[in-house]
Amino acid sequence: MESLKARILAEGRNMGRGILKVDSFVNHQVDAALMYEAGQELARRFANLGVTKVLTAEISGIAPALMTALALGVPIVYARKTKPITMPERIYTRTAPSHTKGHEVALMVSPEFLGPGDRVLIVDDFLATGKTIDALVQIVRDAGAELVGIGAVIEKTFEGGRAVLEHYGVPIYALVTITSMEDGKITFANGVGQ
Amino acid sequence: MESLKARILAEGRNMGRGILKVDSFVNHQVDAALMYEAGQELARRFANLGVTKVLTAEISGIAPALMTALALGVPIVYARKTKPITMPERIYTRTAPSHTKGHEVALMVSPEFLGPGDRVLIVDDFLATGKTIDALVQIVRDAGAELVGIGAVIEKTFEGGRAVLEHYGVPIYALVTITSMEDGKITFANGVGQ
Repeated sequence: MESLKARILAEGRNMGRGILKVDSFVNHQVDAALMYEAGQELARRFANLGVTKVLTAEISGIAPALMTALALGVPIVYARKTKPITMPERIYTRTAPSHTKGHEVALMVSPEFLGPGDRVLIVDDFLATGKTIDALVQIVRDAGAELVGIGAVIEKTFEGGRAVLEHYGVPIYALVTITSMEDGKITFANGVGQ
Repeated sequence: MESLKARILAEGRNMGRGILKVDSFVNHQVDAALMYEAGQELARRFANLGVTKVLTAEISGIAPALMTALALGVPIVYARKTKPITMPERIYTRTAPSHTKGHEVALMVSPEFLGPGDRVLIVDDFLATGKTIDALVQIVRDAGAELVGIGAVIEKTFEGGRAVLEHYGVPIYALVTITSMEDGKITFANGVGQ
């Protein structure tokens, strides 16, 4: 997705230790039109898989997942990190490392909204270590639903997430792939949207 | 918005103490098409105000605010409740009571994304006590930006939020207005979307 790549080059900031600041268009401030385009492109890529639900984790996964769900004509479910009073006692829960809190956080999904018969596309803003997405995959399995694909807005291949997720045997696709952030640079994989 | 009202009647659950469970289509699980329609309708209502940013608070405000921003052709900014490592030292921050955590939470916005010259529409899923929205208004003022309107998906008039916000002198509009949740019922205001 060339528009996204151009935006990362123009506004993304390499903060070192693999941290990419994209909070002017992906998280904190969100470019709604760009996210709409991202959702269209992810939906196109995962069309014909019979997706019934798009699953993501709050918070920054919500925008791209919502736009993908809109394009696919299905609901989105976002795993909660704090249990709301409206959530039932029995839930599906897995933990993943938190980027901001420096410890494990719980991801929680109500059995009301994920179950056998669901064909689930997981969408997140970043595919990095793959640990958050892996926790979501476990929730899909706990619910007896079927994982059919994994999509991300930005993949950082040097954090190894794809290797963690590959064994699930479903298509994994990122709109933009970054292969290195060494020496203060941002290096993209060869080719468009790869 | 009749489709939303119908959905609340079909799926909303009155949990007592003014708590309305709408997590099958507004939060946790989100009906992307319904949120798109909500965004279109809020954008129509606040058209011609020269909105440059839609502001909301994570988490459940993101979906309706994003769709409103998409319809208005402007970015959305969501106030963070946990400070990410990508956020600068100096930020705008105000506190609001948390529904789920039972104490005050900080709402944080980076000065990079809100400032003088911005004309801000605040959008949230609920207008209830008005305290979260009031904290967002304070952030708009701290940033030297101008508040031009307040929109919500669902207003619960019996929690008094409108009275808290009225003195700001900007249009306040909710897609659906609930006047009472007593005796296990959900009572809507007279008229469509009011």
